[in-house]
Amino acid sequence: HLFCHKLQESMLSSASGFKNYRGILNWCVVMLVLSNARLFLENLLRYGILVDPIQVVSLFLKDPYSWPAACLVIVSNVFIFVALYTERKLAMGSISEKVGLLIYIFNLTVILCFPMVVVLKLPSITPVGGAFALGVYTILFLKLYSYKDVNRWCRERTQYFALCFSDMYYFVFAPTLCYELNFPRSESIRMGFLLRRLFEMVGNCTLFNSVKPVFILQEMDYSRMTERLLRLAVPNHLIWLIFFYCFFHSSMNFVAELLRFGDREFYRDWWNSETITYFWQNWNIPVHKWCLRHFYKPLLRRGAGKLLSQSAVFFASAFFHEYLVSVPLRMFRLWAFMGMMAQLPLAWFVARFLRGNYGNAAVWLSLIIGQPIAVLMYVHDYYVTHCQDDPTITEAL
Amino acid sequence: HLFCHKLQESMLSSASGFKNYRGILNWCVVMLVLSNARLFLENLLRYGILVDPIQVVSLFLKDPYSWPAACLVIVSNVFIFVALYTERKLAMGSISEKVGLLIYIFNLTVILCFPMVVVLKLPSITPVGGAFALGVYTILFLKLYSYKDVNRWCRERTQYFALCFSDMYYFVFAPTLCYELNFPRSESIRMGFLLRRLFEMVGNCTLFNSVKPVFILQEMDYSRMTERLLRLAVPNHLIWLIFFYCFFHSSMNFVAELLRFGDREFYRDWWNSETITYFWQNWNIPVHKWCLRHFYKPLLRRGAGKLLSQSAVFFASAFFHEYLVSVPLRMFRLWAFMGMMAQLPLAWFVARFLRGNYGNAAVWLSLIIGQPIAVLMYVHDYYVTHCQDDPTITEAL
Repeated sequence: HLFCHKLQESMLSSASGFKNYRGILNWCVVMLVLSNARLFLENLLRYGILVDPIQVVSLFLKDPYSWPAACLVIVSNVFIFVALYTERKLAMGSISEKVGLLIYIFNLTVILCFPMVVVLKLPSITPVGGAFALGVYTILFLKLYSYKDVNRWCRERTQYFALCFSDMYYFVFAPTLCYELNFPRSESIRMGFLLRRLFEMVGNCTLFNSVKPVFILQEMDYSRMTERLLRLAVPNHLIWLIFFYCFFHSSMNFVAELLRFGDREFYRDWWNSETITYFWQNWNIPVHKWCLRHFYKPLLRRGAGKLLSQSAVFFASAFFHEYLVSVPLRMFRLWAFMGMMAQLPLAWFVARFLRGNYGNAAVWLSLIIGQPIAVLMYVHDYYVTHCQDDPTITEAL
Repeated sequence: HLFCHKLQESMLSSASGFKNYRGILNWCVVMLVLSNARLFLENLLRYGILVDPIQVVSLFLKDPYSWPAACLVIVSNVFIFVALYTERKLAMGSISEKVGLLIYIFNLTVILCFPMVVVLKLPSITPVGGAFALGVYTILFLKLYSYKDVNRWCRERTQYFALCFSDMYYFVFAPTLCYELNFPRSESIRMGFLLRRLFEMVGNCTLFNSVKPVFILQEMDYSRMTERLLRLAVPNHLIWLIFFYCFFHSSMNFVAELLRFGDREFYRDWWNSETITYFWQNWNIPVHKWCLRHFYKPLLRRGAGKLLSQSAVFFASAFFHEYLVSVPLRMFRLWAFMGMMAQLPLAWFVARFLRGNYGNAAVWLSLIIGQPIAVLMYVHDYYVTHCQDDPTITEAL
């Protein structure tokens, strides 16, 4: 016991190489829950119970504005049927590959254009309802594109494959965008797991409500833009983080558990990303997998260069971002498109000049600051267009 | 490319076993810096530059209340000399082991009692100055106790050891409580490392200032205790976290780098602790190491049981917590002592009923909620004693 010291670095020093910070994640969750509990208690003490959940549901069901979006989603089944029947005809040899391809091009174009036209022409669709419907159609577009590719590959290899309804609808509801003949399945539905994810989804919805007011109240003062931006950045970023967890972890795992869908890799460790590229490759695995399998690799096989293919993927991604934001808001400003395209020079800069934890901090900063800039642009333009003449709204702000 | 899915869990599911969340730590730092930048900018826009740093330093130097504590710290050198000379006499054989032990017992008792009497009797010492002086004396007590033990062990093994001034003062300033004949040394002073730690210390002081007002303004409303407690808990916890980083990482590494002290293990991964015991064993390594080497193991060697020795360590720790809080505040209420002793049943409960991430969340909760309860108790009693008759303070609250 005479000697009790040895040469070593502190764990928080990057030189130590220590990386296990699972506890910090738990800390974030505990802090979020506690802050929310405090807010809940404060409101309860001040106002009593104001919101009746049954009333909320009945209001939502009675609200006629929520129906056109739902109708749009129901109509989408038509396109699924078209894809399935085309594949059946192709498999039987009743129609040639060329005719099949033409039907597919027509079908996929309509999938993107039809909801856009409806949302733009029907004033009763709210921005939220429109964004939801367009999101569903975009997912369907990617899924049917994958379905087409995989079935063609199977025919080329004269491999056996089933074209039945149950198979098709399993794929439509499964939390993936890439079709496969036999998805890996988990052994059973774990009820505890299912309930935990459900509990998280409900809990996160409460969190959404407590963050939202800050967000709405503070976005309309255009003087002192930097200070306002920083003030908007934190709640906006928290909303994005909660959305990420709620959608990519809770909801997708919930659906996967229900369907006994085995592959739960919906995201990888993007929180550690030290380059912008690593972030985009790891935060949304279903889309990343689809892009790689049905867009990037086919481009490479046809002889396109690496840089060209990468830029094409970013361009397509920018297009869909713009599509999902501009159409529901009925404003074509290209802010989302430019935001996505700005990632390319930013990625080059971060990769060139920053390493390790500094690179990671730069990625976080681009997320925390970059998003609210785009949001602020749209909010600014939306209110200028819609609310400037309305005295009740300008007064409330 | 026909098959692209495999059976796997999501990374955030505990079943995946993935634990690398270094990025989340960076996120916390980025969020702290950003919130602070926003607050700084807001104050700058609203009030302009109010604080002149040179003025603050000169005010601090002129303030007569800050001197008695500094004098107390300077006087502490006497006890260091006594210890060194006693050891020299013992090494030369001029005095017997028994006489040496008696001198040490006297010296160590005076180290604990002398500053206590001064702080209690001298009304010009502020609570902060008193706590600082008592902290220095407590550290000195632990260091000299270790010095005594190690030198005795060396004599028993007739091992060579040097008893020079430079050696003694290196130990006094080194960031450890355990004496050793040859501390491991780093090869050189890294200027970049030194400057980063200095920068962190300065930055954290600014953070302290921005968190403090929330803390002071909100602690005096005694109605609705639960809601107030939660409101106090978050800033109090943030202060504790910033204090931890500032003291255990920045300052200790700064001093160690200056002294080329090699062993930088000032804390281990307490943020991952799944039991209360693990937390107490890993958050403060210098004290934990001292307790193990000079208190727990000697007790075991003398035949005490494990549980008895553990309880004795907790009891001693509770005593020092109470000593460092009660004396500077001049109130003996045993809240700190009871807070420490309450850790024993709490540790049993958490270890018995909670596992994994749930255990970790329980440890965090005990930190976030437990501390402000004790703080609230002292604050309550302090204001009841000192401020109830002062109309200016009650009005301000």
